[in-house]
Amino acid sequence: MPIPAPNLHPTFNIVRLSHVELRVTDLEWSRGFYVDTLGLQITHEDHDTIYLRAMEERGHHSMILRRADVPSVGVLGFKVWEDEDLDRAEAWFKARDLPVAWIERPFMGRTLRTRDPWGIPLEFYATMDRLPTIHQQYKLYRGVKPLRIDHFNMFASDVDASVAFYGAMGFRLTEYTADEITGRTWAAWMHRKGGVHDVAFTNGTGPRLHHTAFWVPTPLNIIDLLDLMSTTGYLANIERGPGRHGISNAFFLYIRDNDGHRTEIYCSDYQTVDPDLEPIRWSLTDPQRQTLWGAAAPRSWFELGSTFDGADLRDSDLKSQPIIAP
Amino acid sequence: MPIPAPNLHPTFNIVRLSHVELRVTDLEWSRGFYVDTLGLQITHEDHDTIYLRAMEERGHHSMILRRADVPSVGVLGFKVWEDEDLDRAEAWFKARDLPVAWIERPFMGRTLRTRDPWGIPLEFYATMDRLPTIHQQYKLYRGVKPLRIDHFNMFASDVDASVAFYGAMGFRLTEYTADEITGRTWAAWMHRKGGVHDVAFTNGTGPRLHHTAFWVPTPLNIIDLLDLMSTTGYLANIERGPGRHGISNAFFLYIRDNDGHRTEIYCSDYQTVDPDLEPIRWSLTDPQRQTLWGAAAPRSWFELGSTFDGADLRDSDLKSQPIIAP
Amino acid sequence: MPIPAPNLHPTFNIVRLSHVELRVTDLEWSRGFYVDTLGLQITHEDHDTIYLRAMEERGHHSMILRRADVPSVGVLGFKVWEDEDLDRAEAWFKARDLPVAWIERPFMGRTLRTRDPWGIPLEFYATMDRLPTIHQQYKLYRGVKPLRIDHFNMFASDVDASVAFYGAMGFRLTEYTADEITGRTWAAWMHRKGGVHDVAFTNGTGPRLHHTAFWVPTPLNIIDLLDLMSTTGYLANIERGPGRHGISNAFFLYIRDNDGHRTEIYCSDYQTVDPDLEPIRWSLTDPQRQTLWGAAAPRSWFELGSTFDGADLRDSDLKSQPIIAP
Amino acid sequence: MPIPAPNLHPTFNIVRLSHVELRVTDLEWSRGFYVDTLGLQITHEDHDTIYLRAMEERGHHSMILRRADVPSVGVLGFKVWEDEDLDRAEAWFKARDLPVAWIERPFMGRTLRTRDPWGIPLEFYATMDRLPTIHQQYKLYRGVKPLRIDHFNMFASDVDASVAFYGAMGFRLTEYTADEITGRTWAAWMHRKGGVHDVAFTNGTGPRLHHTAFWVPTPLNIIDLLDLMSTTGYLANIERGPGRHGISNAFFLYIRDNDGHRTEIYCSDYQTVDPDLEPIRWSLTDPQRQTLWGAAAPRSWFELGSTFDGADLRDSDLKSQPIIAP
Repeated sequence: MPIPAPNLHPTFNIVRLSHVELRVTDLEWSRGFYVDTLGLQITHEDHDTIYLRAMEERGHHSMILRRADVPSVGVLGFKVWEDEDLDRAEAWFKARDLPVAWIERPFMGRTLRTRDPWGIPLEFYATMDRLPTIHQQYKLYRGVKPLRIDHFNMFASDVDASVAFYGAMGFRLTEYTADEITGRTWAAWMHRKGGVHDVAFTNGTGPRLHHTAFWVPTPLNIIDLLDLMSTTGYLANIERGPGRHGISNAFFLYIRDNDGHRTEIYCSDYQTVDPDLEPIRWSLTDPQRQTLWGAAAPRSWFELGSTFDGADLRDSDLKSQPIIAP
Repeated sequence: MPIPAPNLHPTFNIVRLSHVELRVTDLEWSRGFYVDTLGLQITHEDHDTIYLRAMEERGHHSMILRRADVPSVGVLGFKVWEDEDLDRAEAWFKARDLPVAWIERPFMGRTLRTRDPWGIPLEFYATMDRLPTIHQQYKLYRGVKPLRIDHFNMFASDVDASVAFYGAMGFRLTEYTADEITGRTWAAWMHRKGGVHDVAFTNGTGPRLHHTAFWVPTPLNIIDLLDLMSTTGYLANIERGPGRHGISNAFFLYIRDNDGHRTEIYCSDYQTVDPDLEPIRWSLTDPQRQTLWGAAAPRSWFELGSTFDGADLRDSDLKSQPIIAP
Repeated sequence: MPIPAPNLHPTFNIVRLSHVELRVTDLEWSRGFYVDTLGLQITHEDHDTIYLRAMEERGHHSMILRRADVPSVGVLGFKVWEDEDLDRAEAWFKARDLPVAWIERPFMGRTLRTRDPWGIPLEFYATMDRLPTIHQQYKLYRGVKPLRIDHFNMFASDVDASVAFYGAMGFRLTEYTADEITGRTWAAWMHRKGGVHDVAFTNGTGPRLHHTAFWVPTPLNIIDLLDLMSTTGYLANIERGPGRHGISNAFFLYIRDNDGHRTEIYCSDYQTVDPDLEPIRWSLTDPQRQTLWGAAAPRSWFELGSTFDGADLRDSDLKSQPIIAP
Repeated sequence: MPIPAPNLHPTFNIVRLSHVELRVTDLEWSRGFYVDTLGLQITHEDHDTIYLRAMEERGHHSMILRRADVPSVGVLGFKVWEDEDLDRAEAWFKARDLPVAWIERPFMGRTLRTRDPWGIPLEFYATMDRLPTIHQQYKLYRGVKPLRIDHFNMFASDVDASVAFYGAMGFRLTEYTADEITGRTWAAWMHRKGGVHDVAFTNGTGPRLHHTAFWVPTPLNIIDLLDLMSTTGYLANIERGPGRHGISNAFFLYIRDNDGHRTEIYCSDYQTVDPDLEPIRWSLTDPQRQTLWGAAAPRSWFELGSTFDGADLRDSDLKSQPIIAP
């Protein structure tokens, strides 16, 4: 499918991805994982939820851990430019026959709840409680020293359709994998905030969340996390890496919590603010797009993901691909 | 002076700073400095000019070295979102009685030439020749491994007025130094592209360019550059650093070429895309705003800068400040 | 087998490992690999040989590349404290019915040639030509910025016997893997110069050279090498890593040249000069001894090695081990 | 003065420097500084003393903090090869009319107490309590992640005489600063353990301890410490750095505790085990020997040091040197 031109004048202005709600079955274990080991900071905590932010974030939270009987992803959150963008978003989703609702969310202003056509729960807001800076309180840095949430990566049963939908919302393509045989897009990276991506889509049974990524200062922080996890009982939670992706040029590590929620720790992508930035095309037959240095990813990385609350799964019709993909 | 609210709907849309033209008296020496030592890549070279880009840039150039009898700064360049923004910019500058002209520039599309009220030569364009990516051609990385141009820092004789003018253009304040005694702004950092700054203003005889900054991957690249410069005849060109600024949280190094043009090598600022990002206020009496770790900057760093071609100098009336500032 | 007490008063005083001679079938290719890519410095070159040193070495060479029809390892070289140690070494090897000869070697003083009981060709010398320092000529640093040769790792058909033999020479054990079932030593790390090892032995068909290791400043240099190799045609020469060994705590990368000679790039072991340093015991059933972070090594890493010129191969009788070992 | 040949067969075998006793006036403050901030690990603590080790050390302690009314240095400790070396050391010091005594020290075996000719209190031992390894307990790493004690640096009123005395003990010279005018040695670096130094001497009023150094993994750990100290109330304790010494090629930071005891944080020297290693000569007129990158050290660094308990101060007769030295 030919790559669509970017929508440089979207109807409503999404600033960036904002937060994810992970439903977890053992909140205390998750606290040890995300707080004590990764190093996210608690901004609010009660019996059933923990709100977290990374070190340079001033919004109240970028991750919510919520106690649940079954693990799932509650919602993906996005921040818009101003309050009026929420109304424009409401109209935009309504026009596409997608469910919309104005909901109350703690620590957040007016919030629009909706779903994309595949059922991924989305919420948009313009204002969230702002907190004092902590990025120069170096005593608080722990674990991998996470600086900010960077992107969501999702399994999609029809990547071309996801690219078209999110592209219409104003997400701009930076890199993609083309399946030369079918002419279809195998995977795509799209951004709003000026990095390689806010959202990415990968061919597979979907919709599922492949991972949420956090940005860290240097590769050495990722090495520190590996040393820490492997000597404090989290060895089995290390899934893949460290390595460098061809796509995005990121130095990466993937870890999975005990509920199967995957986090990417990530540094070194590049700036993409130019509206005429040309998307980089990778061939599905080029293994370096995944790992520039050549090491294969484990099967789990290709197959496992987190389901979204309330979304039905659909298989991709591009199933006959080799395990090497995406 | 109270900090003005950000202009969230500027008349024309500046994407980012783009390029600087440095006029240099010994082009061969400058080649050795910027190309062989810093590691910028030549994209065009003729008898009188060298065009350079950093490793992740796809625009044709972010620095132009131009042979001249006297060193100066020829122009500061900015990229706008689309062609129509150039016409809107023309009207905006005209309405302020500032000179405008449509000029021809190699490798660039339609280009609007103007000056700010203090005479700083500015040019705006929407399209520049795009070049193939080289960010994964690791064989080409040299010197400090510069990734992209990051910002311009200028001496201004009236920082409050500069903040008001550039703020009206849509630059948003991220950090600033307040002079508690006079109530004036001593220095200010303003951005378009989502980092701490595209432009910054510091009180002093102006307009002069204090420095142009390039972004590098990690502090270790800066240490590598120091080792290289200090053992290849560039020891006297090291001016200040390495250190960390309180303001911007940047790990920095300042170097000066033989014409007095200053370059900052820089990493680790933070994301500023939120329209409701609160500017961070620093007191003029807090020395950690300059150097978090406490080491003083040399006198040259406070006093010396590059003049802009065709701009007359004006003293600041805030001259009675201690050398410790800005 | 119980671990023997260290020989704190060896008959002759070996200072450290010194150099390896690799016989290579395409000297020009090897030059591109070891010089242009790894970054070793040429100290002498003629039609059939290239002598190399790393950046902080002052001895004339730590690696010799020698043109040959068939790849093999010519010799492992060791430096002794003083000339008299060579005579003591001669007597020591003679007393064990091992072949000794005084040979001429370019750039080296009096040189004793011998073999260990399994046929590994060894040479000892007290003096080698000394070269001016280059460790502060930062312009010369390239590739992985190799600082010094660190150790030899060998496949041995009877590790306990190798440990006993090299231990008698004064090599002191720092870490080892014990096979709990047989009571045998599966692998052993032994040093003279105060790091984790100058020599190591791993159970397998032997004698073969598993790898020669070079020390580099930080893990980031290893990441740089991976980026360079994977984008300059050496992707297939990357074998394993990056990772951290449990044993030795080293951050490592393994690469293999086109003749199958393996090099480890290595940093972060620890100081071992104390004569009462207790060897660290690892169980053969603990996979973290190999990779602290859990990723498995590829089969090639366990099976492939370089033969020594003139040494016959013998299978280990500990063959029934799982591939996970050593 | 001509540099003396190294003593390759010293009477007794010193393995390495081992520990320092710092007498401090506010033990709780010192705990916060050395334990919580630097990251040394407590191995024993009582009302008046804290014993500390760094992360890869297995000996019981490398630093003792002892409560005192007046700050001073209690003793410099060294480990010898075996018990017999203590008797040989006793005879050696006795033969030079220096005081010797066998003393009891907690956690240590037989201990010889003596002084050098200038009164520096020294103690030698062969065995100290050995502790379990913690270098792979990554959860314990804090602050600058100190790995091991590296060296003592002392002010000496007659550096040539100190070099002769410690050289006779077997310390071997690696680098030195020559005063071309007087022919005297201005400063000298000497080792036993295979790095640039275990002890160093600098011209000045002596004997005083200039600093004790700890080795850390990479320059980034030093940057982390600077960030931490400058935001937790220790800004005034940062004295000099970060920078690179010409001599030793070390990346360094100097900090001083509230009692004036100075610690160097240090990485990247080089291996010096070769008995024929040629000392590197630096000229007193070359400022890069101190700081390769050119930044001057503050006056305090040249002038201040810790007195040794019971040692009388003597001025150097090389006092007319510029502040730039040593």
